[in-house]
Amino acid sequence: MKNLKIPIIIVNYKTYSEATGKKAVKLSKIADEVSMETGVNVGVAPQFTDIASIAGTVSIPVFAQHVDPIVPGSSTGHVLLESVKEAGAVGTLINHSERQLRLCDIEAIVSKTRESGMVSVVCTNNAAVSAAVAALKPDIVSLEPPELIGTGIPVSKAKPEVVTETVALVKHVNPDVVMLCGAGITKGEDVTAAFKLGTKGVLVASGVVKAKDPRKVLMEFAEAINESV
Amino acid sequence: MKNLKIPIIIVNYKTYSEATGKKAVKLSKIADEVSMETGVNVGVAPQFTDIASIAGTVSIPVFAQHVDPIVPGSSTGHVLLESVKEAGAVGTLINHSERQLRLCDIEAIVSKTRESGMVSVVCTNNAAVSAAVAALKPDIVSLEPPELIGTGIPVSKAKPEVVTETVALVKHVNPDVVMLCGAGITKGEDVTAAFKLGTKGVLVASGVVKAKDPRKVLMEFAEAINESV
Amino acid sequence: MKNLKIPIIIVNYKTYSEATGKKAVKLSKIADEVSMETGVNVGVAPQFTDIASIAGTVSIPVFAQHVDPIVPGSSTGHVLLESVKEAGAVGTLINHSERQLRLCDIEAIVSKTRESGMVSVVCTNNAAVSAAVAALKPDIVSLEPPELIGTGIPVSKAKPEVVTETVALVKHVNPDVVMLCGAGITKGEDVTAAFKLGTKGVLVASGVVKAKDPRKVLMEFAEAINESV
Amino acid sequence: MKNLKIPIIIVNYKTYSEATGKKAVKLSKIADEVSMETGVNVGVAPQFTDIASIAGTVSIPVFAQHVDPIVPGSSTGHVLLESVKEAGAVGTLINHSERQLRLCDIEAIVSKTRESGMVSVVCTNNAAVSAAVAALKPDIVSLEPPELIGTGIPVSKAKPEVVTETVALVKHVNPDVVMLCGAGITKGEDVTAAFKLGTKGVLVASGVVKAKDPRKVLMEFAEAINESV
Repeated sequence: MKNLKIPIIIVNYKTYSEATGKKAVKLSKIADEVSMETGVNVGVAPQFTDIASIAGTVSIPVFAQHVDPIVPGSSTGHVLLESVKEAGAVGTLINHSERQLRLCDIEAIVSKTRESGMVSVVCTNNAAVSAAVAALKPDIVSLEPPELIGTGIPVSKAKPEVVTETVALVKHVNPDVVMLCGAGITKGEDVTAAFKLGTKGVLVASGVVKAKDPRKVLMEFAEAINESV
Repeated sequence: MKNLKIPIIIVNYKTYSEATGKKAVKLSKIADEVSMETGVNVGVAPQFTDIASIAGTVSIPVFAQHVDPIVPGSSTGHVLLESVKEAGAVGTLINHSERQLRLCDIEAIVSKTRESGMVSVVCTNNAAVSAAVAALKPDIVSLEPPELIGTGIPVSKAKPEVVTETVALVKHVNPDVVMLCGAGITKGEDVTAAFKLGTKGVLVASGVVKAKDPRKVLMEFAEAINESV
Repeated sequence: MKNLKIPIIIVNYKTYSEATGKKAVKLSKIADEVSMETGVNVGVAPQFTDIASIAGTVSIPVFAQHVDPIVPGSSTGHVLLESVKEAGAVGTLINHSERQLRLCDIEAIVSKTRESGMVSVVCTNNAAVSAAVAALKPDIVSLEPPELIGTGIPVSKAKPEVVTETVALVKHVNPDVVMLCGAGITKGEDVTAAFKLGTKGVLVASGVVKAKDPRKVLMEFAEAINESV
Repeated sequence: MKNLKIPIIIVNYKTYSEATGKKAVKLSKIADEVSMETGVNVGVAPQFTDIASIAGTVSIPVFAQHVDPIVPGSSTGHVLLESVKEAGAVGTLINHSERQLRLCDIEAIVSKTRESGMVSVVCTNNAAVSAAVAALKPDIVSLEPPELIGTGIPVSKAKPEVVTETVALVKHVNPDVVMLCGAGITKGEDVTAAFKLGTKGVLVASGVVKAKDPRKVLMEFAEAINESV
C-alpha cells in the first residue's frame, strides 16, 4: 500500500497541549528516533497547523487527523486534502470517534485520498461499522470502541471478541484492508494482544502523548511488535 | 483593539488552489508589500496548514479562517485556538457563511478569543444577525450577504441600505464593534462605497485571490482606503 | 403577544417515555385541568408525532420542541413550521440546549415564526447568548444553564445572579421580550424564586414529567405563580 | 421481512405543501385505493406530524422520513423511533439524501429499527455507499443519485449501469437486502426499467406528490410492477 510499511504504530496527537506546536515537533523527533532504532514504522497525526513543521523535520509518515469532503474553492474554514498533502502529510485519519462523519462524506474522502495517492485510515466504533467501511476500500481500518478511549483499559484485552469479530467481518468484505485497533493501549502487552487478535498495529493517543516518558512507551510498543511479527 | 490597526483589508484565502501552500506564502508577501507601500493594514486568512509558514515570513496580521469551541484535550480533527496562536495567528474569522456555527459556539469562541488576547472577526449574513453578534462583544463584525459572495456584485453598491441598517443596529447594541463588509468587492470604488456607508474596511476573497494581478487589486483597495479616511 | 397569556408554565415533554403517545395526551389533560382550576396558563411541548392528538384534545397552548429553517419543498426528514401549525401548535421552542442551532438558523426560524403569527420561545445557555437572542426579537427567551438541566438544583436558587444579569441584559437590548427560566425546577419555591428574579414563568421538563404526581407538582407551580403576580 | 409485501412503491411526501396535513391524509387515501385496486403494495412516508392521522385512516404501510439515533430521555426536538411506532409507522427512511447521517448513526438506527420489529429503508447515493450500507443488514436499500432527484430524468434510464452495479455489489455483501431505486421516476416505463435492472420497487416523491393526477401516476406505476413481476 503506497509504500506504507506495515505493521505500524500511529500516534494521534489530538488537541493535547503536550503535542501542540513546538512540543509536537519534539514528540515527533522521539517517534522518529524510536522508528529508526527499532525498525518499526511509527506514524504521527498532529494538528493541521503542525503538519508542515513536523513533516519538514522528521522522516516518519505524518497523517492529518481529518480532512473535509471538498474540492479546492469556496470552503472557508474547512480542511482541504490538497493542503495537508502539500504540507507533507502522506495520509489522513478519517471518521475518528471525536470527529465522526456522514457515510457519504467518508466515501467521498476515501475515494479522494485514493486518487491522491495518499493513505486512508478510517476509524470505526464497532464490528458492523467496520464491515461497512471495508466496502469503501480504504487502506486501513482502525477499530476504537469509544467507551474505552482514554481509559487505559486496552481494547485488545477488554474486548478481544470484538476485535476478532471485526477482523473476520472486515476480511470477509475486503481482504485487502489492513486492520489496526486502538483505545486504552498503554503497555507493550496490549500491543502484543492486539497482534494475536489479527491486527497489524495500533492507533494510540494519550498512552503515548500523556506518558511521563513517551520514548520509553513507544520503545515498548515497537519491541512488542518486533516480537509479534 | 489589541493593537490591530484600523481600517483594515482582510483577504480570505478560502480553500482556493491559488492560495494554498507555496502560493499562499507568495500571495502573502504581495499583501505585505502593499501594506508597507501604502501604510494600510492588510491581513490574510490562509488555511490552517499555511498559517505557520506565512506568519514566519511576513509582518502583516495573519488570521485563522475558523477555530472550534474546544479546550486542549480529546478533540481529534478539530482546530484549537491555542494551535493557531502558536502558529502565529493574531486572530480568527468566526462564523463565515461557508462555516456557520451554532450561537452557543460563536459565543464560546468569541469569549475564548478575547481571553487569549486575539482578535475576533465574526461574519454575519444580515442586519439582525449582526445585531445579535454585537451583543457578544467581538472585536469586528463583517457583514457578508451570502447571495453576493463570489458574484462580483459589491454589497456596498447592491445593498447599501442593508450595510447602513447593519452599521446602525450594531452601533446601537455595542458601539465598540468595528464594522467591515464583504461580498462582491472587486474594485477600489466598491471599497470607497463601503467606507461611505460607515464600515472601516473590507473582507475580500476571490476579488483578490483569483484576480489576474492581485497586487494591482490590493493597491487599488488600499488607495481607496487612504482616500476615504 | 399573539394572545399568549403571561405568566406561563411550559412543560417540555422531551423524548421521555412517560410523555410519548397516549401518555402524552393523558399528561396534557392534567395540564389542561390545572390551568382551568388555577387560571394560570400552562403550555405543553410534546414530540412532533403527538402534537395533533394533543391539540385536538386540550385547550391549552401546544408548542413544537423544534422546527427547521426551511420552506415547503424538498427537505425529507425535517420539520416544517407549517406542518406543526396545521397540527395545532401555536408556537415552538427554538435552540433548546439539547437541539442547539446555528445563529443564522435561529434568526431565520424566529422571523418565520413571527410571520406565521406563532410564538417563538428561544432557549439560551447564558447571559451573553440571551442578549444576542434578544436582538432577534423573539417573543420569549428562556434561560436554561445546561449544567443544571435535570439535576433538581433550581437555576433560580443556584444561580440567581445569572438570572438577574440575563434579565437586565435582555431588557437592555429588547424590552419587549418575555423572560422565562428553567433547569432544575421541581418545587413551588423554585418558581417563586424565579419570579422574584424578574422572569414571567418557567420552562420545566423532568420536574413535572417524571414526578410521581405531575398534577400535584403543576398545581404547586401554578399556585406559586398566583402568589407571585 | 416483517410481513412487508415486496415489490413496493414508497411515496416520500418530503415537506411538500401538497402533502402536508389534510392534503397528506387525502393523498394517502388515494395511495390506499390504488394499492387495493392493483394488489401492489404502496407505502407512504409523510411528515412526523401527519403519521398518526394517516396511519389511523389507511391500511397501507406508513413510514417515518427519519428517526434520530436516540433512546427515550432528554433529547428535546429529536425524533424517537418509539414515538413514530406508537403513532402507527411500520418503518422509517434512513439517510435520505436530504437528511444524510453519520455512519455510526445509520448503524445505530438500523440496529434499533431491527430490534423494534420495524422496517429500515436506507437511502444511498452511489454503489460504494450502497455496499457499505448492505453490511449493516438493513431490510431495504434505496439507491437515489442526488443529481437526478426531482429532475424527471429517471435513474433507471439515465444511469442503468449504476443501478446494475449497485444491485450486484449489495447482493455480494448481503443477499438478503431488498433493492429499490429512486430519483426522476415519473412514468410507468421508468418503473419497468428499474425492475429490469434488478430492483424490487421504487422510492418516489415529486413524480407522484406534484403530479396533476397522483392517482393516475400511481396506477401507472402499480401496473408497471404487475407487468414486471
